[in-house]
Amino acid sequence: MQLTFDGETVRGGNEARERFYDARGYGRPQDGELELAPVEAAHLLFRGDVTAVRDDREGGRLGFESLLSSRAVSEVDFFVYKELRDRGFYLSPTDSADVTDFVVYPRGEGPWDDAVAYRVTALSERAAVDAGTLTAIASGTDAEQDEASTGVLAVVDEESEVTYLELDTPTSSGSTNHELPPFDGDLLSDRVLVPEPPESLHDHAFYGQRLDRDDDRVQLSLVEAAYLSSHGDLTVGVEEVADADAIIDRGREVEGERFDRRLRVYDALRSAGIVPKTGFKFGADFRTYADVDSVDDLGHSEFLVRALPADHSFVPRDLSLDVRLAHGVRKRMLFALTTEDDINWLSAERLTP
Amino acid sequence: MQLTFDGETVRGGNEARERFYDARGYGRPQDGELELAPVEAAHLLFRGDVTAVRDDREGGRLGFESLLSSRAVSEVDFFVYKELRDRGFYLSPTDSADVTDFVVYPRGEGPWDDAVAYRVTALSERAAVDAGTLTAIASGTDAEQDEASTGVLAVVDEESEVTYLELDTPTSSGSTNHELPPFDGDLLSDRVLVPEPPESLHDHAFYGQRLDRDDDRVQLSLVEAAYLSSHGDLTVGVEEVADADAIIDRGREVEGERFDRRLRVYDALRSAGIVPKTGFKFGADFRTYADVDSVDDLGHSEFLVRALPADHSFVPRDLSLDVRLAHGVRKRMLFALTTEDDINWLSAERLTP
Repeated sequence: MQLTFDGETVRGGNEARERFYDARGYGRPQDGELELAPVEAAHLLFRGDVTAVRDDREGGRLGFESLLSSRAVSEVDFFVYKELRDRGFYLSPTDSADVTDFVVYPRGEGPWDDAVAYRVTALSERAAVDAGTLTAIASGTDAEQDEASTGVLAVVDEESEVTYLELDTPTSSGSTNHELPPFDGDLLSDRVLVPEPPESLHDHAFYGQRLDRDDDRVQLSLVEAAYLSSHGDLTVGVEEVADADAIIDRGREVEGERFDRRLRVYDALRSAGIVPKTGFKFGADFRTYADVDSVDDLGHSEFLVRALPADHSFVPRDLSLDVRLAHGVRKRMLFALTTEDDINWLSAERLTP
Repeated sequence: MQLTFDGETVRGGNEARERFYDARGYGRPQDGELELAPVEAAHLLFRGDVTAVRDDREGGRLGFESLLSSRAVSEVDFFVYKELRDRGFYLSPTDSADVTDFVVYPRGEGPWDDAVAYRVTALSERAAVDAGTLTAIASGTDAEQDEASTGVLAVVDEESEVTYLELDTPTSSGSTNHELPPFDGDLLSDRVLVPEPPESLHDHAFYGQRLDRDDDRVQLSLVEAAYLSSHGDLTVGVEEVADADAIIDRGREVEGERFDRRLRVYDALRSAGIVPKTGFKFGADFRTYADVDSVDDLGHSEFLVRALPADHSFVPRDLSLDVRLAHGVRKRMLFALTTEDDINWLSAERLTP
């Protein structure tokens, strides 16, 4: 049985189609014969199902190592293909222009069925990936086919182990909504002190923190204070500028535009009925509580949120760090990709296909 | 009992000295009387030990809230001071020009003793801190006093909880040292494939990874390959340029100068007898093994290493993330602060004083 390679596609005859496509889901049929992507041929060569492929361009025969060295196959793609095959999946490489590198069929199904379980994009540990690409992986591009399938980033580390991250663009909302009477605070250098807070401020609406266990005074973070002030609840009584502007200026002094980004994300979460509190202990901007009625009965915080510019470039290592830590504390990692007037939400979770 | 504030120092008489310094370690004695830093006075006011301080400049009396609002006291410093007092420590503010904000005495001792347990620098969650400052905190500045004390970064988060990070400048070494015969490899796009590796390459010296469980071929990461090639062990046989340069160029194509940084750190660790392997699953550049004799008996990897430029500016949130994750997997977080020709090592660990 002869397979030939023209530099782009590996082709085989009727027997190859029967043996590799019909029986084991490699490649696609073309007029009764077989077309394989180079990564599929590399896997057949690696397994020893095929010993060599004839090189139509230069003559000679390509084995596994020479095909991998030829740059027709990225070894990053190969390791992902192999790992998913090892897990018992059939999968097909897509058009290389697509953000999706492989469509993976549900276990027990193959390219002759309609269903797709995962849309997988392969990435080297060393390569950065921008937020827009991650969002495209999460959302999918071909609406009909993609609806039921999961967008997955498969990162190949330097030991060629594959880590799968499930990406999604969730919308979430909560039910926290407490009316506050207007109140006064003192603007300190890094927060606002509220000497006589309305009772609901901390205990029900979960703004700020008591100064001490048995102390009724409440301290607000600058981001909380900026939000409350811009909504007319808090007055800090500075002179010459609006209260909210004074607080925001204080925030920017130390954080620059990161403060504005955090404030926009804070505002969006509060507007959705969700309480954001500092995520510092978890290395995030915020942890969130969806339905707060009383601080004595908070429930589990569900998300860790990181506020990032919409054009942020992710290093896979940092994604791995965030997702692993969030998983360890039973939370979901959520990236708030912010522009001046919009936020796109992107979640990432470890996946075992 | 009257305390007065001149804008810099709070002063009290003989009775105040007896009551606050002699009995409870606040301030320092001066000609039998008492001098307090504003943060110490704020704590006495907060506790109600003193009801107000006379303002010598403008007349009038300052309570806790007005002293805190006056900017004579940073509330970030105050929360750290209070937290350590709550834990039962006596501590003294230092000269504000020093990188150390507080010297903390061993439990049961105070400013009248010689020993210092911790040198503490207070920082807001929101404020960035550069690598040089962290190294100064770790090393201390006053050699004699600092020798036995621990450098600590105390981060005050937006809810005013304090997280303590112990900083150190460790030197570590291992005993891994295996002679390798020269061998050949194929340079792929993201790694090097070694079709016929010397047996010790992976199994003893722990370079690379087998291509598959039952496959003897070894794949090397580009950083491993660059190291081995520059030490004359590996030949990839590219034309026109030296092998190591070709590999380094491939590394830079994707990672830029990050590749050079990782390679320098890799080289320094290997030279110290330590085996660095990818730390991807832990969100780090490397995990390390100190004494590898056989991959079948690796032992626990001790450090997670992140290679950073020596002028890196740390966001406390990211420090928190790294340290928490490392702790969760029983490893120590190590930052390799690299310049062209030097590496400073900085470790960070969670501390409960």
